[in-house]
Amino acid sequence: MKPSRLEAFSDGVFAVAITLLVFNLKVPDVAGGHLRVALGHQWPSYIAYVISFLSIGICWVNHHSILDRIAMADRELLFINLALLLGIVSIPFTTSLAAIWYNQGTNAKWAIGIYCANWVYVSATYILLIHHLMGHEHLATHATGVTLQSLLRKGLFGIVAYLVALVVSLIAPIVAFFICLALAVYFVFGVQGEAMAEH
Amino acid sequence: MKPSRLEAFSDGVFAVAITLLVFNLKVPDVAGGHLRVALGHQWPSYIAYVISFLSIGICWVNHHSILDRIAMADRELLFINLALLLGIVSIPFTTSLAAIWYNQGTNAKWAIGIYCANWVYVSATYILLIHHLMGHEHLATHATGVTLQSLLRKGLFGIVAYLVALVVSLIAPIVAFFICLALAVYFVFGVQGEAMAEH
Amino acid sequence: MKPSRLEAFSDGVFAVAITLLVFNLKVPDVAGGHLRVALGHQWPSYIAYVISFLSIGICWVNHHSILDRIAMADRELLFINLALLLGIVSIPFTTSLAAIWYNQGTNAKWAIGIYCANWVYVSATYILLIHHLMGHEHLATHATGVTLQSLLRKGLFGIVAYLVALVVSLIAPIVAFFICLALAVYFVFGVQGEAMAEH
Amino acid sequence: MKPSRLEAFSDGVFAVAITLLVFNLKVPDVAGGHLRVALGHQWPSYIAYVISFLSIGICWVNHHSILDRIAMADRELLFINLALLLGIVSIPFTTSLAAIWYNQGTNAKWAIGIYCANWVYVSATYILLIHHLMGHEHLATHATGVTLQSLLRKGLFGIVAYLVALVVSLIAPIVAFFICLALAVYFVFGVQGEAMAEH
Repeated sequence: MKPSRLEAFSDGVFAVAITLLVFNLKVPDVAGGHLRVALGHQWPSYIAYVISFLSIGICWVNHHSILDRIAMADRELLFINLALLLGIVSIPFTTSLAAIWYNQGTNAKWAIGIYCANWVYVSATYILLIHHLMGHEHLATHATGVTLQSLLRKGLFGIVAYLVALVVSLIAPIVAFFICLALAVYFVFGVQGEAMAEH
Repeated sequence: MKPSRLEAFSDGVFAVAITLLVFNLKVPDVAGGHLRVALGHQWPSYIAYVISFLSIGICWVNHHSILDRIAMADRELLFINLALLLGIVSIPFTTSLAAIWYNQGTNAKWAIGIYCANWVYVSATYILLIHHLMGHEHLATHATGVTLQSLLRKGLFGIVAYLVALVVSLIAPIVAFFICLALAVYFVFGVQGEAMAEH
Repeated sequence: MKPSRLEAFSDGVFAVAITLLVFNLKVPDVAGGHLRVALGHQWPSYIAYVISFLSIGICWVNHHSILDRIAMADRELLFINLALLLGIVSIPFTTSLAAIWYNQGTNAKWAIGIYCANWVYVSATYILLIHHLMGHEHLATHATGVTLQSLLRKGLFGIVAYLVALVVSLIAPIVAFFICLALAVYFVFGVQGEAMAEH
Repeated sequence: MKPSRLEAFSDGVFAVAITLLVFNLKVPDVAGGHLRVALGHQWPSYIAYVISFLSIGICWVNHHSILDRIAMADRELLFINLALLLGIVSIPFTTSLAAIWYNQGTNAKWAIGIYCANWVYVSATYILLIHHLMGHEHLATHATGVTLQSLLRKGLFGIVAYLVALVVSLIAPIVAFFICLALAVYFVFGVQGEAMAEH
């Protein structure tokens, strides 16, 4: 299979998943009184919306860096990519879970823990994808630019960071939530920039 | 009509349909108590989500193998493709039907039966598409790679397998549900691999 | 603006709108008793789903026949195309309106009348698009194939047919509903075929 | 990153966001009595739907005019574009907020104010995008056609106009709502036309 098709389908899934995040924002009920107060109470939904939007956006950029290195797709690669997309498509659900249950005592640990676990899963499939490419030289292009090694380093950093967030979520869920926010901001301004600089 | 357009539109529909599956995952109500317990009760939704995600993913791969063999699209081909997409777009609905009604006695037979019937329908339109191409030589490309015969074999295997699942669903719906799961896994690791090997 | 961009955006909107039709299919409530009976009562939703799916599919095919004739897009053309897409995006809503209110006495006239009016509107923007191309020769390509005249004839047939359905809906809404079904089937097997034959 | 990828992803997000606006149109409950009356009461939803549809459509056209001038994308550009898309994806939510709360006294100021603020935000990211291109000559193409200066002028006009609407919304929300409608119509027939004329 030509990588251009993999790209078109993956881009479509990323674009739909990132847009479906808007369903996390609920219009408060008219009967509920003060709109300003009602919207204020929804602050976790807004933060979660921005975190997930940026994170899916970063994933899309990184996914493209990987696809750029693919000359040909084999069976395992298609399957690993499908597994990665499964993780991306689940984000609107786990985002909603985290935003609604963030302050429900013990339940918050589960909600935010599952959100962090979703990103651990995405990072793992991302690493698998790169690992598969590194082990099958005939699938990769030998173009200059971002190297598979540098993409792998980013993937390993990502999985460790989200595993830390996952562990923290079992102790202090709300802190884990802000770690995810910090990671999204860091990836936008930091790692992403480094990768571009290598270009 | 040039096949590139057929591809772009079909890819779009596949990408949206596979992403809409996320609406099968519902955030449990905060008033409902224990999140862990509430999520545990939703296990059929998660299994159904994964089955349908993988199955639509496999369909997309197979659909592309067929489109790769098309040099030109005529009226019947466009109509058969539209009929196939109608089946794909219905999957998020029948998936939800199966996940919600799976343990409702006699009703489960209808719910999971309809889910299996949806895949029988998709397999049938897939076979029709290949059959139409085989009967109209001027529409097909003569490229090397996956042959129409091998695609047809996969289609026939698929329709027989889903017909078996449909029959089983009338006796033991939950077993049919797991047959669909087994088929998705088999198609990912088995038939799909065989087709790729032929490449 | 290059027509390829117009195509990509329009294809995306068509693909999303046709897939959103699935939200017209509602899983009956578990508390509601017999699934078979509950699904049976939803028959207008299923018919409406198929009518709208086929009709949007046909519109997409016709839209592409028009875009094929465009060499360059000017301001009016972009605006007319946006107006056409506004009609397409509204179809999932008016479909739902027709399917839910079809048997509510006088209200049914409004529900099915609005559905027919939506298609009259789509046909009108389709004719406007062709008319604009015919009046601005520098925008059109001079390729062989389907002529603008033949596309215009189809558009005029469509608007007259849907105006008849609209008038009928004010007297016998359910009959108008079936006229829309007959039109979709006719367009798939009839007019569409004629246009392809001209190719 | 090649601009063609930026285009494909951005087009996907625009197409999904513009289509999701249809969820602002709700089918009135059958128990609610007269359909004609119920639909009549929803007029703000219909106006909001058309305003937002046209406005997103115009944004898409302008976004493409900018992308046309991009030869290469750097880190900041990707991030600014993601920030712009975040604003576009939020429109279906703020549209719904404005349409549901438009006549709720003081609350209406918040609802329509947030809607206007959303467009101020989109205009600001649009200006940032152009500003970034103007400050990094190696990123821009030197093609003829719409100049970055003329795109910037449109962006500055847009942000001033939406800031005026935002201020008005704090005094007379319903007037601000109609200013947004007037702006959409003006952009379709006016500024857009001017830009095209320069082509």
